[in-house]
Amino acid sequence: MNIVPIINTNDAVVPPAEPNSDLQGVNVISVKDNDSLAARLAVEMKTDLLIVLSDVEGLFDSPPGSDDAKLIDIFYPGDQQSVTFGTKSRVGMGGMEAKVKAALWALQGGTSVVIANGTHPKVSGHVITDIVEGKKVGTFFSEVKPAGPTVEQQGEMARSGGRMLAALEPEQRAEIIHNLADLLTDQRDEILLANKKDMEEAEGRLAAPLLKRLSLSTSKLNSLAIGLRQIASSSQDSVGRVLRRTRIAKNLELEQVTVPIGVLLVIFESRPDCLPQVAALAIASGNGLLLKGGKEAAHSNRILHLLTQEALSIHGVKEAVQLVNTREEVEDLCRLDKMIDLIIPRGSSQLVRDIQKAAKGIPVMGHSEGICHMYVDSEASVDKVTRLVRDSKCEYPAACNALETLLIHRDLLRTPLFDQIIDMLRVEQVKIHAGPKFASYLTFSPSEVKSLRTEYGDLELCIEVVDNVQEAIDHIHKYGSSHTDAIVTENEKTAEFFLQHVDSACVFWNASTRFSDGYRFGLGAEVGISTSRIHARGPVGLEGLLTTKWLLRGQDHVVSDFSEHGNLKYLHENLPVPQRNTN
Amino acid sequence: MNIVPIINTNDAVVPPAEPNSDLQGVNVISVKDNDSLAARLAVEMKTDLLIVLSDVEGLFDSPPGSDDAKLIDIFYPGDQQSVTFGTKSRVGMGGMEAKVKAALWALQGGTSVVIANGTHPKVSGHVITDIVEGKKVGTFFSEVKPAGPTVEQQGEMARSGGRMLAALEPEQRAEIIHNLADLLTDQRDEILLANKKDMEEAEGRLAAPLLKRLSLSTSKLNSLAIGLRQIASSSQDSVGRVLRRTRIAKNLELEQVTVPIGVLLVIFESRPDCLPQVAALAIASGNGLLLKGGKEAAHSNRILHLLTQEALSIHGVKEAVQLVNTREEVEDLCRLDKMIDLIIPRGSSQLVRDIQKAAKGIPVMGHSEGICHMYVDSEASVDKVTRLVRDSKCEYPAACNALETLLIHRDLLRTPLFDQIIDMLRVEQVKIHAGPKFASYLTFSPSEVKSLRTEYGDLELCIEVVDNVQEAIDHIHKYGSSHTDAIVTENEKTAEFFLQHVDSACVFWNASTRFSDGYRFGLGAEVGISTSRIHARGPVGLEGLLTTKWLLRGQDHVVSDFSEHGNLKYLHENLPVPQRNTN
Repeated sequence: MNIVPIINTNDAVVPPAEPNSDLQGVNVISVKDNDSLAARLAVEMKTDLLIVLSDVEGLFDSPPGSDDAKLIDIFYPGDQQSVTFGTKSRVGMGGMEAKVKAALWALQGGTSVVIANGTHPKVSGHVITDIVEGKKVGTFFSEVKPAGPTVEQQGEMARSGGRMLAALEPEQRAEIIHNLADLLTDQRDEILLANKKDMEEAEGRLAAPLLKRLSLSTSKLNSLAIGLRQIASSSQDSVGRVLRRTRIAKNLELEQVTVPIGVLLVIFESRPDCLPQVAALAIASGNGLLLKGGKEAAHSNRILHLLTQEALSIHGVKEAVQLVNTREEVEDLCRLDKMIDLIIPRGSSQLVRDIQKAAKGIPVMGHSEGICHMYVDSEASVDKVTRLVRDSKCEYPAACNALETLLIHRDLLRTPLFDQIIDMLRVEQVKIHAGPKFASYLTFSPSEVKSLRTEYGDLELCIEVVDNVQEAIDHIHKYGSSHTDAIVTENEKTAEFFLQHVDSACVFWNASTRFSDGYRFGLGAEVGISTSRIHARGPVGLEGLLTTKWLLRGQDHVVSDFSEHGNLKYLHENLPVPQRNTN
Repeated sequence: MNIVPIINTNDAVVPPAEPNSDLQGVNVISVKDNDSLAARLAVEMKTDLLIVLSDVEGLFDSPPGSDDAKLIDIFYPGDQQSVTFGTKSRVGMGGMEAKVKAALWALQGGTSVVIANGTHPKVSGHVITDIVEGKKVGTFFSEVKPAGPTVEQQGEMARSGGRMLAALEPEQRAEIIHNLADLLTDQRDEILLANKKDMEEAEGRLAAPLLKRLSLSTSKLNSLAIGLRQIASSSQDSVGRVLRRTRIAKNLELEQVTVPIGVLLVIFESRPDCLPQVAALAIASGNGLLLKGGKEAAHSNRILHLLTQEALSIHGVKEAVQLVNTREEVEDLCRLDKMIDLIIPRGSSQLVRDIQKAAKGIPVMGHSEGICHMYVDSEASVDKVTRLVRDSKCEYPAACNALETLLIHRDLLRTPLFDQIIDMLRVEQVKIHAGPKFASYLTFSPSEVKSLRTEYGDLELCIEVVDNVQEAIDHIHKYGSSHTDAIVTENEKTAEFFLQHVDSACVFWNASTRFSDGYRFGLGAEVGISTSRIHARGPVGLEGLLTTKWLLRGQDHVVSDFSEHGNLKYLHENLPVPQRNTN
């Protein structure tokens, strides 16, 4: 396996070198223990990597266990000239001296080194695989210091910058966004030049639809600027809104107010226009932001990020939005659970699923799938059905709120209504797949579906037959993705039964599934559509980027006054709160 | 390592047995391939376990890849007499026939068998460790069928039962809870008898405080019943409340209403009184519930769960609350991400942390730590400070909302106010730890703190000195847990600055940190206190167990009518919603 294990000192049988010859030349290191033996051997053999396993996680920047101690991911000897081996003060090596000395010596001799913990139960054996795969494990020794801050430092800047952003007046946040919108049009030439570079590098390597998503144009930038101004105006009423007020006792008043969540990590794929849009949403909601864009849009993202920071500078909060280096792996970012409060993936449902798996303890907001149903009831109006099905399926079939499965009441088979639907689908060139029950009713059936749980995202549609509204609901619960499901009927009782019982984010009656959208719902800026059941569900506006905090203002109130033997009683009187503004 | 690897057919060099002698006796199996060779060898050698690794996950209950196919965790041959080898219909073995035959033969010969996937990248090698550790991997062949449903079946029952519960009228849910409250007092003797069994078995094995938490009494049951009736009354206004109404267009109205989250998993430690309380909260909010209690309270939990199901039966929703077998590992439950929507750990912060780590993709609601601060400003009122500090620290020091670090403005050192605080802490026998700055100001200082990030949970307090309110805020952000932090001052401007800038769930002015509590906040039933920033933050009432769904009622509305070329325009008119009831 091309691995030389070196277990411990007793295996070292060479005579010791002179005590003081260490580090006097690249070829001299005293072999005193397994660490120095390993370093010597690694250099002699020109190994690719020396892994030094210990019982601590790696090198810390202050004594391990102290309040501020942080693991050093990458250690640059050139940057740390003042390190004094043998003292514990500078890098908190406590017991690590020999390992660090050996590591530095091996690094000088041209071997990469990782010091990591080899004692984790259950995953021991795994640590080596992780290191070889290039994951962030332990401390990596490197000669070359990358330019710019580490992602941990960026996380801290986003946190403190975000807090400063949150402390601004709503008007100031809106002003930053307006400023960014101006910059997008003023600096158009520079942006398009950077985008041209991306396009040239991507040419021939990306498929046409992806190239289209990557490209920016004057008109795209203009409409982006318009969108930003909308976000700016919807931001006025978001942070600091009072949701609840309670008089707990005389002169003791409780208030629940909206506040930013903290630090968001937004991961997006090729579309660079995502960057200013997401940045504007974060600014509007007072959140710190880490942005991770695709490699293919690196040039465009860089200039767009610079402009965002320029806009933020007008109120001294430049650091609130950080662009993460393209070399950082998404998986590594997902481990920063102390720094990131919410991850928002913007892109394919595959991206969302991957990130949901990778995120360890950090909540992820995003829809993974949109398998939307429309149930045509036996009492559906002939005039409405075709119109509703066409809009739901054909208007923009790639959208997550487009129709994927049409459920038809059994009584409608072989009626003019049914023929009308099929004729319309033929005209619109929609490929029909038959559910097993539907297929069994037909003499000549279209190809049977492979799975009733399919998101076609194209001009394809599954049709299945159900006996009644209850069976339609059961089908939706079993095969749906709880995104958007609709009923077409003239019977109000059936409709309300459906609305109440279907357990989806959006449930519609006699309306196209395509209404499931933040803009169409009137939520102002749309953050995304969430199929999660926690925090935000369905189309999410700026509110999805907010949480709340409780403010209690008293005089000298203590809980013991309210105990059995105390002299006070809880009032718990709800006080009026200002109503939401009408748009 | 006591493992015999059997790689493939080519290694089998024994002559083939007669074709039809298979399964005719326990000692006869034709060695045709590696599977049969392995089974034969396993039985001959009396091995503990035969692991058959394949390229599929295990045995499925219908053809793998079909919509309904589910992995069989444990396969009981006695239960599946009708299995026909060679057909793919019954257990969807497609290609698995030889393996299943070998497995059944080995099982009959007294060897346990697991069929699992050995081809997962990255974790290959791990699957064997997982199996040996008893984790749920692949399909385990067993002769003994355990009584009762599997946890997956329980998850499905909780889901469908929960949906039925959610469809009841609020009055019916309240009735179930009242019924459970009655049963707790009516069936008191039976409950106390079961609890006595638990106590006897725990005697000498559990520490006194844990025994106290385990024990039930008539008075505990009575106050539990009172609490349940309160939950019942606060349940009336929870599910189905309209939060937002928007007129999107003429005759197209959008409504956002509260609905249950779905299925909750509540994990609790020794306290059996947790069970009816949590069940009542789930019932009140219309959620399905999986309960996982501690082994030490098994007898008490069993009877309390039976009574809960009895109460649920009055409206035919008995299955909505499931008690998970004590043998199920929490880690295995946390993997059921398709079945569980929210995990609520109730117990020590260690339990919460463990579960946050184990939960893969399922959100966890719970506070991990309460490191609460009180900042005494230079303009604090002498009369108030001592009173507020005493209540915050001494009234119930084990609570998560108790004070842990007192931050004192530098100007107060060596003033009568300062002496008053120290005198009070002496009288209350609070052990003082000095922060580094505080220690540097004193000639003789108390022992210096090991970490400023400590939750003592006892009559111990850290005191640190700060120069001003900004430094107090910085300290809280650096060392706090964003739970509850308070300021004592008479200066309204300083107070409002603190209230706005401290980034914690609860921020108080001139009030004890101990007010941070659902009951004291007037939230009715308390679900817990959340230090998460997502979904619910701070003290959480029934609302924390709810999410929302969007209902859209139209006539025949399609989005293409609202396009550039369409004839309709979005109105997005906010309609009034009913105000929250006053308690």
